Amino acid sequence: MISQEDLPLMVDLYELAMAQAYWAEGMQESAVFSLFFRELPEHRNFVLACGQQRIAEVVEKLSFTDRHLERLRELDRFRPGFLDWLKAFRFSGAIRAVDEGTPLFPQEPLLEIRAPIAEAQILESLVMNYVHLESVLASKAVRIKFAAGDCPVVDFGMRRMHGLDAAHRGVRAYRLAGLSGTSNVLAGLDFGMQVNGTMAHSFVQAYADEIEAFKVYARLYPGTTLLVDTYDSRRAVKRMVNWLQREPDVSVGAIRLDSGDLAEEARDCRAILDDAGFKDIKIMASGGLDEYRIASLRENGAPIDGFGVGTAIGAANDAPALDLAYKLTEYAGEPKMKSSSGKKSWPGEKQVFRQYDDHGIAKRDVIAGLYEPMGGIPLLKTVMEDGKLLPAALTPLDEEVANAQRRIQSLPPGLRTIKPSSGYEVEISDYLQNLQAETFRKVAV
Amino acid sequence: MISQEDLPLMVDLYELAMAQAYWAEGMQESAVFSLFFRELPEHRNFVLACGQQRIAEVVEKLSFTDRHLERLRELDRFRPGFLDWLKAFRFSGAIRAVDEGTPLFPQEPLLEIRAPIAEAQILESLVMNYVHLESVLASKAVRIKFAAGDCPVVDFGMRRMHGLDAAHRGVRAYRLAGLSGTSNVLAGLDFGMQVNGTMAHSFVQAYADEIEAFKVYARLYPGTTLLVDTYDSRRAVKRMVNWLQREPDVSVGAIRLDSGDLAEEARDCRAILDDAGFKDIKIMASGGLDEYRIASLRENGAPIDGFGVGTAIGAANDAPALDLAYKLTEYAGEPKMKSSSGKKSWPGEKQVFRQYDDHGIAKRDVIAGLYEPMGGIPLLKTVMEDGKLLPAALTPLDEEVANAQRRIQSLPPGLRTIKPSSGYEVEISDYLQNLQAETFRKVAV
Repeated sequence: MISQEDLPLMVDLYELAMAQAYWAEGMQESAVFSLFFRELPEHRNFVLACGQQRIAEVVEKLSFTDRHLERLRELDRFRPGFLDWLKAFRFSGAIRAVDEGTPLFPQEPLLEIRAPIAEAQILESLVMNYVHLESVLASKAVRIKFAAGDCPVVDFGMRRMHGLDAAHRGVRAYRLAGLSGTSNVLAGLDFGMQVNGTMAHSFVQAYADEIEAFKVYARLYPGTTLLVDTYDSRRAVKRMVNWLQREPDVSVGAIRLDSGDLAEEARDCRAILDDAGFKDIKIMASGGLDEYRIASLRENGAPIDGFGVGTAIGAANDAPALDLAYKLTEYAGEPKMKSSSGKKSWPGEKQVFRQYDDHGIAKRDVIAGLYEPMGGIPLLKTVMEDGKLLPAALTPLDEEVANAQRRIQSLPPGLRTIKPSSGYEVEISDYLQNLQAETFRKVAV
Repeated sequence: MISQEDLPLMVDLYELAMAQAYWAEGMQESAVFSLFFRELPEHRNFVLACGQQRIAEVVEKLSFTDRHLERLRELDRFRPGFLDWLKAFRFSGAIRAVDEGTPLFPQEPLLEIRAPIAEAQILESLVMNYVHLESVLASKAVRIKFAAGDCPVVDFGMRRMHGLDAAHRGVRAYRLAGLSGTSNVLAGLDFGMQVNGTMAHSFVQAYADEIEAFKVYARLYPGTTLLVDTYDSRRAVKRMVNWLQREPDVSVGAIRLDSGDLAEEARDCRAILDDAGFKDIKIMASGGLDEYRIASLRENGAPIDGFGVGTAIGAANDAPALDLAYKLTEYAGEPKMKSSSGKKSWPGEKQVFRQYDDHGIAKRDVIAGLYEPMGGIPLLKTVMEDGKLLPAALTPLDEEVANAQRRIQSLPPGLRTIKPSSGYEVEISDYLQNLQAETFRKVAV
C-alpha cells in the first residue's frame, strides 16, 4: 500500500539521475514542462482531463526524509551532496492547470510546471501517473454517460480496477464524468457520491429457495433491489410478484438483471411486473455493459431504468492507456522541443483559449503562447506559485462536478456521443507555429 | 492515497448489506467462496496468478475501528448491533491458494476461502481487486518476456499504470513474470528488483548541443546508456562515436532508441558503432513496444540487446481486465452454484492437480473435489487457518520468483509463446461433474 510518505520514492530512476546531473553541473535555471495528450484513439472525441489540479496538493507536501535517503543509498548511485539537495528539496515552482473535468483535445496542455529544472524533472512520473489514471477513467465514463442519457449509471468497477488507488480516486473521476453512484463505500464517502448496492448471487444461493432470500432483504431493506437472475430471471420475477401480491406491506424498488440477453429479459420481466400491477418496480441492468451495449439496449427500447457498469469503466477496457506526455518546452529562457520521428512538440509556455458561439457552444480552441492576447476563455489557471497552493485555486468537489458537467454540455453535440466525431477545430497560433519552426531550425543544425 | 487503515471500507456496499442480513438472520454457517477466471481472451494462453497468497497478509490485519463505524453510520443503513459485529470482526476462516506466479487456466480456482458466510462475503471486492491487478499485469508481462527471449526486459510502465498501488505492486508481478528490471525506484527497492534508468529527452534538450549532454552523463555515470533519438539518431550516434574516439577514457554502455522505425534505426546505429570499433556498446529499444513488435524486431534480426516496455505492460493494454469471479460454492455443508445463462460454476470445495510427463512438462490439469485422491501435484495450499497466517505459508519473494519461472518453463512449449495455443487439457473429475449435475437439479426445481 502506498501512502503520502512513500511518494518521494515513487519516481523513475532516470529522473533522479538527471536531477543529480543538474545538481552536479550547477544547472538551476528555470524550466517549463508541459503535460498533454499527444493523440487520442478514434473512439475518444476528447479527453476529460482530471487530476491535474489535485496533484498540486500532493506536490506541495513532497519532501525527502532521512529514511528516503537511506533507501536511495542502497542504489549506490547518488553522491552525498545530491542527497543533501534532496533532503532540502521542497517544490518551489509554479503550476498552471485546467480545471478538474475539462474536455481537452490532443496537444492541448492540461498542466504546465515552471520550476528549477531538477525540481520539475523529478515530478515527471508521479504527475503523469496521477493525472493519467483519472483522465483515462473519466474519459471512458463520460462515454458511458452519453450512451445512458438520463438513466442513472452506477460504478460497479472496484473489483476490476487496477489496484486500490485506482478504485478510490477513480470514483472522483466518475463523479466529474457524470455518473450517479458507486458501489465503493470508502470512495463514495470520501468523494460525496451516492453509495449503491444490495445483493450478490451468493446471497440468493445461500438460501434453499431464492424467494426466501428476497423476503429477508425486502424486510430488512424496504425499497431494495432484488437480483433475479441467479437461476432463471423470468421464473424468479413470476414467483416474486406472486409473493408481493400476497404481501401488500412489502416494498421492492427494483429488480436487477446481470446476465443473459438483457433486452429480452428486461422486456419479459417488465411485462410480468406490469401485468401484476407492479409498474413502479424498476429494472436495473448490469453484467458486461459498455457504452455500445447500453446504446443498443436503449435504441432497442429495452425497458431498463438504470445501469451498473463494472469492467468497461473500471479498466477503461478499450483504451486503458492514453498517450500522455510530459515534455520540456523551455529552459533558461530558451524554447525547447523534441523533433524525433513523429513526435514534434510545441515549444514555450502555453495557454489554451476556448472560443464559444452565441449559444454558448464551444466552436474552436486556440493553443497559443502564454502571453498572447487571444479571444476566448483561457483554460489554464495558476494553482501554485512559489511552491504554495493558491488559497482560491482548488474548488470544492461539488462545484467542480457542476462546472465539469457545464463544460461537457457546452461541447458541440457531435462530440457528446459515442460515435467518432467529425472533429473539433484546434488552431495553433501563428506565434507558436513560428516559434516551433525557429526552434526546430536551431536544434536541427 | 489508500493505506492499510482504509482497507476495511474498501468494500462494495452490497457486501456489508448482505453481511448485515446474515447477522440479522443469525446465519453464521461456514461458506466456501472460490476465486477463478471464468474465461480468457484468445491472446492469453494462461493466466499467471499472482497476489492470491499475499492477500492473506492483508486479510489477517483487517479490523474495523470506531472511525470506520462512524463513517458507516453516515450511510444510514446499518443497525447498531451489526456495527458491533463489525467492530468485533476478525477474519476467522481458512484460505487456500496457489503459489504466487502459478500459470492457471479458466475455471481453476486460484484461491478458496472457508469462513462464516458474512466474513467471507465482506472480503469479496478487496480480494478481487488485489488479485486481479497482479494477475492481469503478470499475465501480460510474461508474454512480453516470451517475445523477448533471452533479451532483458525492463518495466518503464509507472506513468501509464492505473494509480500508485498498481505502479507499486505491479512490479512484484513483473518480477514473478520474469522481467529483469524496473524504472520505479520504490517498487524496485521494495521488491528487490534491479532499478534501471538514465536519461529522458528533456535532459538532452536542456543543453544547446546534445553531445554536451552525453559528455555530462558519461562523466557522471560511467557505462551509462545514452538516449540518441531526441533529434536524429544516426547523426547523434555518428557524433557520439567521433567524440568517443577522441576520449578513450570515457565509457558508454549502451544507446537507447525510443522512436522511429526501431529495426532500421538499430541496424544503422549498430553499423555506425561497429565501423568505429564500438562493438561492445549495446542497443536498447523502447517506445510503444509490445510483445508483437518485440517478436517482429527479433524475427527480423534487429540488433537490439534489451527492451524497455511501458504502456503495454503498465496497462495490460490488450486485456486490461480479465473475467475474475468470486463465487459461493458451498454453504452450511450444501454445495452451491449459479446457473444463470452461460455462467454455470463448479460447486463445492476444490483442488487442482497438475500432471506432468516424464520430462517434467505439464500435460494435464484435473479440477477435482478437495478430498478426491488424484494423481499429480495439488496446486492449492493452505496459507491461513482460523484467521492466522501459517508461518510457513509465504515464501520469500526471491524463491517465489524462481519457483514461478520453473512453473512457467514446465508448461508445454505451445503455451510459452505469444501465439494462441491449441489448448491445454483441463479435466473436470467425475465427482465434480456429478456434483454439479446434482446441485443443478436442486436449484432448478
